[in-house]
Amino acid sequence: MPSFETILSPALLPQYEMQGKLVVVIDILRATSSICVGFHSGVLMFRPVSHPEQALALEQKGFVAAAERNGQKLDGFKLGNSPFDYLENDLQNKNVAITTTNGTRCLHLSYEAEEIIIGSFLNLKAVANYCSNKQLNVIAFCAGWKDKFNLEDTLFAGALATELSESFIIECDSTLAAMDLYNQAQNNLSDYIKKASHAQRFERLGIEKDIDFCMQSSLYNFVPRMVGDDLVI
Amino acid sequence: MPSFETILSPALLPQYEMQGKLVVVIDILRATSSICVGFHSGVLMFRPVSHPEQALALEQKGFVAAAERNGQKLDGFKLGNSPFDYLENDLQNKNVAITTTNGTRCLHLSYEAEEIIIGSFLNLKAVANYCSNKQLNVIAFCAGWKDKFNLEDTLFAGALATELSESFIIECDSTLAAMDLYNQAQNNLSDYIKKASHAQRFERLGIEKDIDFCMQSSLYNFVPRMVGDDLVI
Repeated sequence: MPSFETILSPALLPQYEMQGKLVVVIDILRATSSICVGFHSGVLMFRPVSHPEQALALEQKGFVAAAERNGQKLDGFKLGNSPFDYLENDLQNKNVAITTTNGTRCLHLSYEAEEIIIGSFLNLKAVANYCSNKQLNVIAFCAGWKDKFNLEDTLFAGALATELSESFIIECDSTLAAMDLYNQAQNNLSDYIKKASHAQRFERLGIEKDIDFCMQSSLYNFVPRMVGDDLVI
Repeated sequence: MPSFETILSPALLPQYEMQGKLVVVIDILRATSSICVGFHSGVLMFRPVSHPEQALALEQKGFVAAAERNGQKLDGFKLGNSPFDYLENDLQNKNVAITTTNGTRCLHLSYEAEEIIIGSFLNLKAVANYCSNKQLNVIAFCAGWKDKFNLEDTLFAGALATELSESFIIECDSTLAAMDLYNQAQNNLSDYIKKASHAQRFERLGIEKDIDFCMQSSLYNFVPRMVGDDLVI
């Protein structure tokens, strides 16, 4: 049976081996959730970039530019990091260049992996099916918040591991902890997350409705995956 | 009110500020538990050192030398890392030079802290009282296993935070997760820990009884603290 491991923060990455594995990048609030919404709204591909200037340069080539730092959309960008940005704008057949505080960085940090996909509660079942079918060793890679542990990404790792627990070997303490936290929180994910520090910060930013949206389970049945420099479905 | 934060692994240390804070170093299986046992058995002071050679050099000066790597006592040393080493040897009025895989390293990594103390389930209540009386901001610093997250150290952080939750501000996701895990595990800590990867490895080493011993709560009413290069009570 393949194995399932969880990296609780990018700072823990050096302790893990990504080669040959399927890495699920997780940034629930909000990059990986919003990317899923974007594909649902007709985006053809996302190009994750490191710097806002790169996104603006790609805007000159016909991309839509998206940039978030510290939880807020940067001035001069059409899109930020809120799922509603990707629901309420017409994105049919668009390419989006995106940079965020945590999530896009993790896509780049995973370059050694055999395959990189995007996970969120919005496409949980599809991600679980994808992992089952591939039969590669899986790493759930939590983006965290500026290299710190966060609850919402850990809960998703726990949800995914719970879906896969019959067909994967789970011996890693991080995954066992994530599963137990998910088990405790699953009946009301939104309320559970609102007690997290990250969410408290979001409350100050007035984006509680983003949390409620991002905690919905399995609305979408596709799995964004990296092909070359781009995310496609 | 002072704050309470948890560092889930030494790899996450760069994201935290230790200056001015009271750091509780936690290596439940087994360094910080065994150090507590040592003081109970009459040890005068422990000197944590980085390398086995340093412990042997101190043996020439009258110290008892203790060294553990990868869960096992090193050849040529009187003491390893098992609590029973510290119960069954006559350590009355002895000084012990000790090096372990994870725990002693964390004592050294905490050098910027205002104060450094040792926490284990064996002295949980005493540590909680000490923190309450000091009224400094507290960091629970989990040694983990070779820079990875582990369950037993996290559970202790959760237990300590639960004791202090009325009188400390707890906004850090790591602490919230630790408290929820402790809440789930507290009625049978030993069984809970035995499912952890670290404990499974210990089972292979035949030291399950160490786990049962280390999970006992508040047997001792003292708090080992760093004074200069040494741990004393």
